[in-house]
Amino acid sequence: MIKQAKSEYPVQEIVAKRWSPYAFANRDVSDDDLRSLFEAARWAPSSYNEQPWSYIVATRAQKSEFERLLSCLLEGNQVWAKAASVLALGVARLNFKRNGKPNKAAIHDLGLAAGGLLYEATARGLCVHQMIGIDPQRARELYKIPEGSEAVTGIAIGYAGAPDSLPEQLKQRDLAPRERNPLRDFVFAGVWGDPL
Amino acid sequence: MIKQAKSEYPVQEIVAKRWSPYAFANRDVSDDDLRSLFEAARWAPSSYNEQPWSYIVATRAQKSEFERLLSCLLEGNQVWAKAASVLALGVARLNFKRNGKPNKAAIHDLGLAAGGLLYEATARGLCVHQMIGIDPQRARELYKIPEGSEAVTGIAIGYAGAPDSLPEQLKQRDLAPRERNPLRDFVFAGVWGDPL
Repeated sequence: MIKQAKSEYPVQEIVAKRWSPYAFANRDVSDDDLRSLFEAARWAPSSYNEQPWSYIVATRAQKSEFERLLSCLLEGNQVWAKAASVLALGVARLNFKRNGKPNKAAIHDLGLAAGGLLYEATARGLCVHQMIGIDPQRARELYKIPEGSEAVTGIAIGYAGAPDSLPEQLKQRDLAPRERNPLRDFVFAGVWGDPL
Repeated sequence: MIKQAKSEYPVQEIVAKRWSPYAFANRDVSDDDLRSLFEAARWAPSSYNEQPWSYIVATRAQKSEFERLLSCLLEGNQVWAKAASVLALGVARLNFKRNGKPNKAAIHDLGLAAGGLLYEATARGLCVHQMIGIDPQRARELYKIPEGSEAVTGIAIGYAGAPDSLPEQLKQRDLAPRERNPLRDFVFAGVWGDPL
């Protein structure tokens, strides 16, 4: 299934084709692809080149590890994310390595790194569905995440699957067209609310 | 000037070529390109499809508007960002539109949208250099940014220029190779610190 963006202005194919499915196919992600996804995250920009991102990763091939990571997602996300081939947690280091002071950009830059990861995934025919609905405290306990770092996102990776495999409500979300606010609603010039 | 990433594992060209210069060339960004950059941001994913991002944009062609936006950057950033063709502020809406509750993903998702913008820029031969060093309160006053939203990032957009135009310290940064931590330092499995 492909859910191409109906863009107002032209964008790259991997931007238009990127999509976060709820349904994943029963197909493994290769180790090569997986490493390239994190390599793409690696080269994202960050404030002071701090690279405040880390990832904890589990593949479905290692059942008990996969179950452990799945248990860090909120129940509503476990329902569909259990079918992904790979699960990961996106962890932000909230203070600067060099001086321990708060890094205001940490969470933003975790998002930037995710951007690299998901466009790389799209280029490889893979899909990524991120979640904010995780249990950071459980993740800290299970994985010994150090103080000053925090699990922020859950990341499901795999090939898009048939929506028929989903509960009805999620199925409808996968089948619905992708919608976005028009540019005039969020790109301003001169004063807040005036379209560019 | 091109500063290709020396990647450990293969990544897409636009991932490897993306780079944040300090030096910008004296060359305008076309309106078509500019709109496609924000179109790419538009199609980024976000928690509950909240799309918590907005942008205030000023092009160098409109001198007073450009100066106004430049004044929202911290002085250390004004030094080089004044040469960009386009400046923008990335603004996050911190509460959900539908219920006013805090959106834990807002800043992260602003970063995701920036990811779309900057890979689209790279594909078009443009460079983007983001800054966390801005004055959010000044931005709020100048642009009437509403309560509940906050300017988080400065965004300089243009064509990379000759580092010779820069103060010595920034010139050295532009000339230095791009460095990143190796994957084993931030991609873990099983327990924190164990490489995948």
